[in-house]
Amino acid sequence: MHNPHTTADLQVALRARLGDAAILTEAAAMLPYCRDWHGDVTSNAIAVLRPRSTAEVCDAVRACRELGLSIIPQGGNTGLVLGAIPDRPESQVILSLERLKAVRSLDPDDFSMVVEAGCILAEIKEVAASKGMFFPLALGAQGSCRIGGNVSTNAGGINVLRYGMTRELVLGLEVVLPDGTVFDALSTLRKDNRGVDLKQLFIGAEGTLGIVTAVALKLTPFPDRVATALLGLNSLEDVMRLYRRARRDCCDLMSAFEFMPPIAFTLAREAMPDLAMPIGGDCPVYVLMEISGSGLVDVDDLMQRFLENVLEDGLVIDGVVAASAAQARNLWLFREGMNEGQARRGTHLRTDISVQLSGLPDFVKEAEAAVATAVPDCVCVSYGHIGDGNVHLNVLPPAGLAAAERSNRIHTAKKVINAVLDRYHGSISAEHGIGRLKRADFEERLPDVQRHLLAAIKKAIDPAMVMNPGCQLNLKELS
Amino acid sequence: MHNPHTTADLQVALRARLGDAAILTEAAAMLPYCRDWHGDVTSNAIAVLRPRSTAEVCDAVRACRELGLSIIPQGGNTGLVLGAIPDRPESQVILSLERLKAVRSLDPDDFSMVVEAGCILAEIKEVAASKGMFFPLALGAQGSCRIGGNVSTNAGGINVLRYGMTRELVLGLEVVLPDGTVFDALSTLRKDNRGVDLKQLFIGAEGTLGIVTAVALKLTPFPDRVATALLGLNSLEDVMRLYRRARRDCCDLMSAFEFMPPIAFTLAREAMPDLAMPIGGDCPVYVLMEISGSGLVDVDDLMQRFLENVLEDGLVIDGVVAASAAQARNLWLFREGMNEGQARRGTHLRTDISVQLSGLPDFVKEAEAAVATAVPDCVCVSYGHIGDGNVHLNVLPPAGLAAAERSNRIHTAKKVINAVLDRYHGSISAEHGIGRLKRADFEERLPDVQRHLLAAIKKAIDPAMVMNPGCQLNLKELS
Repeated sequence: MHNPHTTADLQVALRARLGDAAILTEAAAMLPYCRDWHGDVTSNAIAVLRPRSTAEVCDAVRACRELGLSIIPQGGNTGLVLGAIPDRPESQVILSLERLKAVRSLDPDDFSMVVEAGCILAEIKEVAASKGMFFPLALGAQGSCRIGGNVSTNAGGINVLRYGMTRELVLGLEVVLPDGTVFDALSTLRKDNRGVDLKQLFIGAEGTLGIVTAVALKLTPFPDRVATALLGLNSLEDVMRLYRRARRDCCDLMSAFEFMPPIAFTLAREAMPDLAMPIGGDCPVYVLMEISGSGLVDVDDLMQRFLENVLEDGLVIDGVVAASAAQARNLWLFREGMNEGQARRGTHLRTDISVQLSGLPDFVKEAEAAVATAVPDCVCVSYGHIGDGNVHLNVLPPAGLAAAERSNRIHTAKKVINAVLDRYHGSISAEHGIGRLKRADFEERLPDVQRHLLAAIKKAIDPAMVMNPGCQLNLKELS
Repeated sequence: MHNPHTTADLQVALRARLGDAAILTEAAAMLPYCRDWHGDVTSNAIAVLRPRSTAEVCDAVRACRELGLSIIPQGGNTGLVLGAIPDRPESQVILSLERLKAVRSLDPDDFSMVVEAGCILAEIKEVAASKGMFFPLALGAQGSCRIGGNVSTNAGGINVLRYGMTRELVLGLEVVLPDGTVFDALSTLRKDNRGVDLKQLFIGAEGTLGIVTAVALKLTPFPDRVATALLGLNSLEDVMRLYRRARRDCCDLMSAFEFMPPIAFTLAREAMPDLAMPIGGDCPVYVLMEISGSGLVDVDDLMQRFLENVLEDGLVIDGVVAASAAQARNLWLFREGMNEGQARRGTHLRTDISVQLSGLPDFVKEAEAAVATAVPDCVCVSYGHIGDGNVHLNVLPPAGLAAAERSNRIHTAKKVINAVLDRYHGSISAEHGIGRLKRADFEERLPDVQRHLLAAIKKAIDPAMVMNPGCQLNLKELS
């Protein structure tokens, strides 16, 4: 499939400058880079480049340009939308940031740290914690995902309602541009209104405008006190009532507010059979709520007083408060384990939807009803970051279905869900990005004005279309 | 100065479509639009256009384009950097958004509201408060500034350390582009990762890429409890120690942390002689600190416990806590009155600097020392949003100095301050923007890579250079 001439040229161009370990071309060695957490697609590439520094990234970009190759920047490869997976492997090179792993600085007095793109999120959080500081981004993949990828996808996760998406946690960026020059905006200034804020363009661009090589991050004091509760409620409407009340009663101290259906317990225990049930499990819907703080703020007392009120009012009908960090961890295992449980039931529809907070209960009801009508043998599993209006409304085909039939069910379910979503003016990608998986659905809904702006900006920054072609937009058709 | 032919054409083109009140051409009528809060410059324009709707803004943009005129979008005209003041009045039209004043929606259950660009900030805050909600942006000009201008300048103010700059409060935008089409991204979704986030480009662009006509804003529950304290400390280093301690002890409940020199009391009382001194006034430096919350969080108790500790430790040496909203208001009058006091001492140097939080005390000391050496007869007044690393280091020439001499002092002081600032890698504009006033200082410090990116984006979105030419960058020289 590959042009051996090109591969050899690339090796000649880069081996001398970057060293042998920096370029992989054997299929077996490239395999882990050719498949993301979406899991259903395994691709290939001309080569995988593994530079060790920003200067080496520049070298790699220039070499690829000279050879007419395009570049797919890749972080921890934990994406779910094929954003860093080649779709034209005969002309695409994967550029992994995994060896840019330095913590360039950590200044607790400045509430900031500067890290290279290849740093793993969990390690960043640990390094910050070792100095009493907290980097709030938290998501399932944090043990594997890398900060450059988090920035490039504007990652969300469970703490967004308090701390914002990745965009709000970024103070500065260093980016290698498509022409191989370095855009250095790696400042830790909190306020800087010197003209158009260029770095915003690269956050969430999924590597289509340049390669994020380093990031300046906003830190907060480590919240050493965390109160966690799992609460049973009667309806999604009550979940939203509880959320509004918690926002008011607990102010900005609430750090997570996740909702789950009762099937979450079943799914989690399919993946982790030893998980002890923390609660009856027979309420129509559950909320995992967390309040956190430090210093003089007693979050345990706050949680207790809050729950007393909402139990008395009948808004919450069952509940358990974690008495220890281990118990809190156990509660979170249900939230996390339900993903693994879904995966074990085979290929299924994963959605990543956001709607207006006030429209969320009606949306979920309508979308689930539409799925029940269209594919009655499938199971809906709706859960997610409800405080942000973000719901993962997944659809699981029944066991034992042939692959083609599963695929049909998934296709039909996605179609009916998106039809409801469009009426609610919601987003088909709240936090996962577009990548290649959602490109068609994205382009189909893209107004002309936005399409022209996106194409104009792409052409302004990457006129040779070197960076991640085919991701987000099919630009050949836009020109 | 004007080409009467062009003016007549514009009148013909627009009067019929927009009505008589939509176009001003008399010098007297245009005067209020030709001078901003910077105050030292009064300009002129071909006309002032006052459309009433987004569609009329589109009409106005198209008419100006056809006649080869450029457009200066204008909000409340409270800027300090001449960002909305014509510098080539013979070819420039001011487009005021003051008649786009509708509140399009307010949904407390969605924690959002959608307002048109001409809504005055204070009125937006009042409308939100009437539904128990809070729009956190707070700044001195809030009784006059308009939200479109706040967005276009990414306004800061006193609540940034808790709620972020305007950028972080914007959920969606509607923008009339330079070609007269409408970029409609007026969604209230909290999470939406559908590709590159185009709206970010227009936030802080000072109208150089398009005209913001409506904004979707993020609301929070109204903080009905506010604890305010004025504290005296020994040094700026102690101020930073207090800040770090407050961030930890009070978590995310601290909503303001302003520092002021003792001369603030003198200056405020020069402007408001009846102001009663709330505190001795003989400490080296003062901090105005605010904690706020709602619901179950007792901010008064939190403030009291916090202050007990820091007084006991000797970090705070004097202090007063407001016992009522009226007393709190009185404390804020000193912070606000010092600006008016400075204005009464005549033309002076206003700076709007940010540096790393950890470098702030040394920066202020070095910069003040440099000023004392260079212009020994001037007085430094350093104050500001220290929790964001943002200091207004102003320099007041002595009374009775001739205008040319004042101007020399100001020029010299700015030069020596900026020289120190450059060593600290700080920003010459933390929150005020660049406009035309700071353009030369901005361009002088602009790295080539950034310059090329900014020019490329401008050309991609506004190839005819219709929008606010001369603001932020001198693009003729960039092409």
